[in-house]
Amino acid sequence: MPVSNLPRLLSAIRAPAGDVAAEARRHVDALTKPPGSLGRLEDLAVRLAMLRGGAPSVDAPVIFTFAGDHGVVAEGVSAYPQTVTAQMVENFLRGGAAINVLARQAGARLVVADFGVVTSGPARAGLVQARISAGTDNMARGPAMTRANAVAAIEKGAKLALDALDGGADLVGTGEMGIGNTTAASAITSALTGAPVEQVTGRGTGIDDATLARKIDAISRALDVNRPDPGDPIDVLAKVGGFEIAGLVGVVLAAASRSVPVALDGFISGAAALVAGRLAPDARHAMFASHRSAEPGHAILLADLGLTPYLDLSMRLGEGTGAALFVHLARAAALVYRDMATFKSAGVDGPGDERGPS
Amino acid sequence: MPVSNLPRLLSAIRAPAGDVAAEARRHVDALTKPPGSLGRLEDLAVRLAMLRGGAPSVDAPVIFTFAGDHGVVAEGVSAYPQTVTAQMVENFLRGGAAINVLARQAGARLVVADFGVVTSGPARAGLVQARISAGTDNMARGPAMTRANAVAAIEKGAKLALDALDGGADLVGTGEMGIGNTTAASAITSALTGAPVEQVTGRGTGIDDATLARKIDAISRALDVNRPDPGDPIDVLAKVGGFEIAGLVGVVLAAASRSVPVALDGFISGAAALVAGRLAPDARHAMFASHRSAEPGHAILLADLGLTPYLDLSMRLGEGTGAALFVHLARAAALVYRDMATFKSAGVDGPGDERGPS
Repeated sequence: MPVSNLPRLLSAIRAPAGDVAAEARRHVDALTKPPGSLGRLEDLAVRLAMLRGGAPSVDAPVIFTFAGDHGVVAEGVSAYPQTVTAQMVENFLRGGAAINVLARQAGARLVVADFGVVTSGPARAGLVQARISAGTDNMARGPAMTRANAVAAIEKGAKLALDALDGGADLVGTGEMGIGNTTAASAITSALTGAPVEQVTGRGTGIDDATLARKIDAISRALDVNRPDPGDPIDVLAKVGGFEIAGLVGVVLAAASRSVPVALDGFISGAAALVAGRLAPDARHAMFASHRSAEPGHAILLADLGLTPYLDLSMRLGEGTGAALFVHLARAAALVYRDMATFKSAGVDGPGDERGPS
Repeated sequence: MPVSNLPRLLSAIRAPAGDVAAEARRHVDALTKPPGSLGRLEDLAVRLAMLRGGAPSVDAPVIFTFAGDHGVVAEGVSAYPQTVTAQMVENFLRGGAAINVLARQAGARLVVADFGVVTSGPARAGLVQARISAGTDNMARGPAMTRANAVAAIEKGAKLALDALDGGADLVGTGEMGIGNTTAASAITSALTGAPVEQVTGRGTGIDDATLARKIDAISRALDVNRPDPGDPIDVLAKVGGFEIAGLVGVVLAAASRSVPVALDGFISGAAALVAGRLAPDARHAMFASHRSAEPGHAILLADLGLTPYLDLSMRLGEGTGAALFVHLARAAALVYRDMATFKSAGVDGPGDERGPS
């Protein structure tokens, strides 16, 4: 039974040991700066150290950008034609997309995988094949995929992440491309958190009012037709999710199973994390919300996960772009932890020391 | 007359040409992403392109960390003894402080200059001498420095920045170290914005309630005793400022005079920027607020300058640490501008294109 097998993966996910947190906090407080003065960078350093069980590193990040198409686009929910999914995959392979630029800058390896692009061409160098089907079925009329296919997509995503972790990845990031996938993410978020569809549905790539109304209607019908069981995250994922989202559930679970940090990108990655967190609540210790998306459902699902984003730049592109920007912050936190002098080693007086006039 | 001469510097500061902004926005909108989907990163790219008059770069950033002591510490306004200023300068020179770690990570050259550290030792390799006096006088009892010395410190800072710009620096960052300098920054902010002392005074390195009360009292007395003229920014700087703050005013003005972006660190750097913005309002086009400090006066002065910070991580360390983190964002914006494919070059359909099912 491969280690990417879902039950094995879930059973490997545990909370970090509590005493490591106290030791990490002591170390950060001993560094040459007033305690707490690096704000959330300190908390980030402590969280990374907890996960690692010692001094963290962000030397070999890998970002997974999974692409998949969505049958629900037949309902007219997106501003862009479905052809754009495949065209953007080509753009990823040629290095011209935002995620290429930002991953290069961050020193992150980018893994682009086809989880079911409708108009996919022949096999391409640099494109990982993880197709199960040529996109999901239209969730407004029935389940997006079968339960077996949802599990298969999770396991394919987990396998890709475990391979990268075996190769030394010390941080993984999530990203995606798929015309229509904010529709799926909104449906997942509504189903799992109970928030009304209107509250978790936004303008995605930039749709107009009429398209937004169609999108809300399509999600409402998808939830009515499929009646996903909020107590069964795989059921929700299969009925109103997407293949690339399922693949990212696998990435999150794989990282958590190895206690490696996973930088969540925006709303769609967040929906995958929400499913992962329902499958294994302790997976949340490995999750880092890179940024707050402009999509309204994102804040709702992050609150449900108990995560506070580190960046707030009104981004809503996906692809892993927020995760790539977060790599710099995570690396900064790790370097502060590893490389700063302590008050003692640097011979710097602490608060209220007697030598000065205070 | 050297170019760092203050009147010459001020006369060289102009607003960027308006047509460049429209062209930069058109370029960013043609890149393969929904318009606006990179949020504030796009605005940042446009601002950088406006300043540059074309495609921006952040290849050679330089961060200026200026150190100076403050006579007002005699009033008991800080949690740390004054000796810490010199000790932290040593720490900077040995590479063990947060700014060393973060500047290295950002690929930024760090320039550490002594603008008047009381307990400064002999000349040290790597420490730039820009001393005018061994720290300021106690502003609670009289002017912190003479007007001539304030101008001299501005010009010394400007000279250091102009040298770096001549050497190819394409972004400069500000930073500082000086026990007592949040007291000076609060006094400057109150004097120039008119905000009450209580609203612009925070806990700095982490002072207790009694010390905070002494700090507010010392600032109030400084403003009463000196009566700085809010219409005369040099008067404010001289009477209630600091030498390292004056040096940073020079850095900001020098960068603006060459239309090179200047990444402002936190509250103390912001106070320097406030003085610079009053001396030359168009200098604001070159200013980028890297982050929002936890110090309460920072938001007040940023609002006065019309700047919105890019990061909000509850940091309050200074040294240039926020500016160093911002370098990654500025570089990301520049790389997006330069390296991303356009819809046309990548053959990606736009919104509503006919080929897909939209």
